[in-house]
Amino acid sequence: MALTDHQQREIAEARAETRPTLRATVPALEEILHQPMAVLDHGFVRVIDYMGDDAAVVQAARVSYGRGTRKVSEDRGLINYLMRHRHTTPFEMCEIKFHVKLPVFVARQWIRHRTANVNEYSARYSVLDREFYIPAPEQLAAQSAVNRQGRGAVLEGAEAEEVLAILRRDAAQTYDDYLWMLNEAEEGGAVDSARAGLARELARMNLTLNVYTQWYWKVDLHNLLHFLSLRADPHAQYEIRVYADAMMEAVRRWVPMVHDAFLDYRLGAATLSGKMLEVVRRMLDGETVEQAGSGLGAREWRELMAMLGR
Amino acid sequence: MALTDHQQREIAEARAETRPTLRATVPALEEILHQPMAVLDHGFVRVIDYMGDDAAVVQAARVSYGRGTRKVSEDRGLINYLMRHRHTTPFEMCEIKFHVKLPVFVARQWIRHRTANVNEYSARYSVLDREFYIPAPEQLAAQSAVNRQGRGAVLEGAEAEEVLAILRRDAAQTYDDYLWMLNEAEEGGAVDSARAGLARELARMNLTLNVYTQWYWKVDLHNLLHFLSLRADPHAQYEIRVYADAMMEAVRRWVPMVHDAFLDYRLGAATLSGKMLEVVRRMLDGETVEQAGSGLGAREWRELMAMLGR
Amino acid sequence: MALTDHQQREIAEARAETRPTLRATVPALEEILHQPMAVLDHGFVRVIDYMGDDAAVVQAARVSYGRGTRKVSEDRGLINYLMRHRHTTPFEMCEIKFHVKLPVFVARQWIRHRTANVNEYSARYSVLDREFYIPAPEQLAAQSAVNRQGRGAVLEGAEAEEVLAILRRDAAQTYDDYLWMLNEAEEGGAVDSARAGLARELARMNLTLNVYTQWYWKVDLHNLLHFLSLRADPHAQYEIRVYADAMMEAVRRWVPMVHDAFLDYRLGAATLSGKMLEVVRRMLDGETVEQAGSGLGAREWRELMAMLGR
Amino acid sequence: MALTDHQQREIAEARAETRPTLRATVPALEEILHQPMAVLDHGFVRVIDYMGDDAAVVQAARVSYGRGTRKVSEDRGLINYLMRHRHTTPFEMCEIKFHVKLPVFVARQWIRHRTANVNEYSARYSVLDREFYIPAPEQLAAQSAVNRQGRGAVLEGAEAEEVLAILRRDAAQTYDDYLWMLNEAEEGGAVDSARAGLARELARMNLTLNVYTQWYWKVDLHNLLHFLSLRADPHAQYEIRVYADAMMEAVRRWVPMVHDAFLDYRLGAATLSGKMLEVVRRMLDGETVEQAGSGLGAREWRELMAMLGR
Repeated sequence: MALTDHQQREIAEARAETRPTLRATVPALEEILHQPMAVLDHGFVRVIDYMGDDAAVVQAARVSYGRGTRKVSEDRGLINYLMRHRHTTPFEMCEIKFHVKLPVFVARQWIRHRTANVNEYSARYSVLDREFYIPAPEQLAAQSAVNRQGRGAVLEGAEAEEVLAILRRDAAQTYDDYLWMLNEAEEGGAVDSARAGLARELARMNLTLNVYTQWYWKVDLHNLLHFLSLRADPHAQYEIRVYADAMMEAVRRWVPMVHDAFLDYRLGAATLSGKMLEVVRRMLDGETVEQAGSGLGAREWRELMAMLGR
Repeated sequence: MALTDHQQREIAEARAETRPTLRATVPALEEILHQPMAVLDHGFVRVIDYMGDDAAVVQAARVSYGRGTRKVSEDRGLINYLMRHRHTTPFEMCEIKFHVKLPVFVARQWIRHRTANVNEYSARYSVLDREFYIPAPEQLAAQSAVNRQGRGAVLEGAEAEEVLAILRRDAAQTYDDYLWMLNEAEEGGAVDSARAGLARELARMNLTLNVYTQWYWKVDLHNLLHFLSLRADPHAQYEIRVYADAMMEAVRRWVPMVHDAFLDYRLGAATLSGKMLEVVRRMLDGETVEQAGSGLGAREWRELMAMLGR
Repeated sequence: MALTDHQQREIAEARAETRPTLRATVPALEEILHQPMAVLDHGFVRVIDYMGDDAAVVQAARVSYGRGTRKVSEDRGLINYLMRHRHTTPFEMCEIKFHVKLPVFVARQWIRHRTANVNEYSARYSVLDREFYIPAPEQLAAQSAVNRQGRGAVLEGAEAEEVLAILRRDAAQTYDDYLWMLNEAEEGGAVDSARAGLARELARMNLTLNVYTQWYWKVDLHNLLHFLSLRADPHAQYEIRVYADAMMEAVRRWVPMVHDAFLDYRLGAATLSGKMLEVVRRMLDGETVEQAGSGLGAREWRELMAMLGR
Repeated sequence: MALTDHQQREIAEARAETRPTLRATVPALEEILHQPMAVLDHGFVRVIDYMGDDAAVVQAARVSYGRGTRKVSEDRGLINYLMRHRHTTPFEMCEIKFHVKLPVFVARQWIRHRTANVNEYSARYSVLDREFYIPAPEQLAAQSAVNRQGRGAVLEGAEAEEVLAILRRDAAQTYDDYLWMLNEAEEGGAVDSARAGLARELARMNLTLNVYTQWYWKVDLHNLLHFLSLRADPHAQYEIRVYADAMMEAVRRWVPMVHDAFLDYRLGAATLSGKMLEVVRRMLDGETVEQAGSGLGAREWRELMAMLGR
């Protein structure tokens, strides 16, 4: 994780003194406010602002006054109920803002979640830094044989070395050429006065998709949980999942009751179709059900057996 | 504005003590945080939470660290530039949450702004209070003769009295009948054990559209300004415009630089079509332009002359 | 269902002749295009336009050409897979537009679904018709004793008669007064030249919430299914559920494969929390599980037993 | 523009025969339906479906039946009025679906417009083709000296040749390495059985940002016009502007009245701030106004003079 001196100074200043507020505050989140959580080789996630807490969800659900007038156990029960029955609007009453540094190919997946606000570093306007994501050796995996969008075994030996060498070499080569085309005296180089230099908005196209970008990303709690339900899932690509994991830690500190409800009723939950439920009912009645007579396709049958741990 | 004792106590508690935070705070907004601003005869708007400030807009625009590292005059210039050129995403980085009490027919207009989060008091679940909007005499206007969705002269004399009497009588009658159908011993009455009582979700349909409801409404600054540009406009219906005015006061306290830019570049601005611009150019060249030779329709011509104050 | 002569003529004209198109068409939906399906006492739903079909969902999922190049059974399997795993974007590629006439209190629930486009009849601009929803006797239910937002037994005898009489009387009275305040010679009446007449935008506030309004409502298939999953559900209020049922019939004709998948994997499905799944696993292992030792609260236990049909 | 044989056959089939429909059809758009409009060196835009026409905008504005019952001149006047006064919801009643092939760095700008539906080709799932955007010589521009996100003079001579050679070489090198790492026997090569091959979701990160991707993009007319107002603007980057131009041609064929109104009231329009309007008023009164006494900053003054053509 590469923070410039300037950035580190800014963070230190932001954390130097507190100000008084009449808003809800969350001490456990304030502890890490502004501070980066390292992700991948050069990336990070840091919380830079937030609005609301567990009680704000409860308050919205009751659409009434009464912060603190009810026992915590009731608040927890209400939050669990909202999560279980997908009553989503109370969770929209909390908001959080992250500063994220991430590879472009991860940013491309991330941005598909449209219900959020984004301000991204502009490579039309400014020059990107020489920072590329190179997978750790244990993340250098082969194509999965069974899942067209998954990973299989970790590459080993000469192949692994060669792949890493290629990724490093191509990133360096394309970045060197990017700087040469820009002709802007970056990295201590000198401007070649014989050349006009290519416009930044064009030169950037020579960079590879593992170059790092950064953005502010602001989202309400409901949409953040939806993001996490997809991206903290084992089927998500590892390189975005680690960002989801970091944001999950922020959620844990910020709204601990919502976090617990989310783990039980969303991340750890499973949805059974009408036909799947029928199979379970028959099994609970003592019947031995096979796929053949289940009304389920082979794939659904496997999915159901996995849910039931059989 | 009718606040219950319970609500007043809650507000007093919420304002009783401050908590320390590392987030941006805005003292001028904290001054009125939680406190209701009266609107219409029984309504109010109060700010119950906020995230960000003028600097957060600037920071997002720069997608960089640097709070306070630049002179205020530069921040103002940047905010003006963003507003003038409709660079909207930095304004999305601030968020505010209101608690609003408003008549249902106003709520119906308001909710058409979809890019916001809402939790409304549910008349399916709870009984509504006996509170109806009755216009002040100076707001009791005739249909405009020139504008199909506007108001003309104020009603006077016997007609005005009769209209007010009707509005009061029908509201009272329908509300009395609402309570009778509910048979829930509201307002100190007794339950008639011989009757089952009508379900709340049905009984509410007997209420008139001026009955008050309330909600939490959370919105980002960009979408709030869009709302205000439509609803603080003279063409907006008076009964929603007064809510916009109250929220404008919150914006003035919260993000004063954005507020000033909004007044100059949005509320006070006018958009001239290509043909209108051509007319202005000809006039500035000293030509006397009449509607007939302007290329503009009669209505557009009037609109242009109004913009130019001629 | 009250269609004016003018409306009936318009529908007849719209259905009088077909035009050739190179777009996907769905004959089963064309059969009912433009034609109203009656809902409640004066309401209707009619499909007035659509884009896409089952194949468009498949095509988007494959992000490739290939309409008709694969066997129908494969298309169905793919649609089932998408629905089961909540891959939602392919369903967004189909769009449908409805014309709906509905009571205002139903419109207020409906509009909470924000991801749709709406153009509603404006009572600021025009005069509303004398049409109110009066429940059929079998829908006149008491408040549920167990569910704060549900209905219990049907009202009977004198109470039912009295409630219906009140609903009719108050609707008629408030509407008569609405017309009187407008003073616009509606319904064949004469203008009283001694009165200015109240502005439409004010007079409407005297109407009750069961007055009918109408709108065009355009939505993509994914968001329509989300709407239906909430509003075709037994917990939805009857008065909006009947609109959902009518739209479900349109979905059945429009995208039959999506419709079937939706019934099995969404409407007929149930989501089990991590703890609920654990209970089911223990039961399938032959253990007798009681609520006390289940790790579930009393309410969750009841919900689980209901899902399992026990 | 590279269409595979398969794609060309599919398009021919889609255009081979028409089907009858009761929906609104637009013959001028049907003429080009499914057919690609070439953009850049390998890209294209093609309309693959649409819903609505000029009359649908009018119909929504009137929220009434009546297609064709009013004279065309009135429809045009109404559309102009809606556009001028930014009454946006009637434009949301039309929908269009494009299939677009475009470089990734253009896709990254494009996707910032969130109010649309997207299904993109997945490089996690499939292998990308060897297609990269290489600017035409006349588009190879230097960085603008006056605008941090603009282009200046066209590069010439040896520098231009070198830049083009670099872009080609780096794209080829990174793509060759991509294929090698995949080890999937693409482009007629053989699989090296000694190597496992890198997962597609990882290998893609080695590609440069000018590689082509493709997607289906569905959007309503209001949001399309908003996109075009930003991207068909001279300040937009050339490489996205050419896509906007192609879509503008589709709009011209699809909704010609809306197209004309858009040109006059949006693309050719200018918004003057309150202070700018005051300056114009003083000038029209015959006063000689200089920047110094105008109340405008230097930059605003230049912008105003540009609008006024002075």
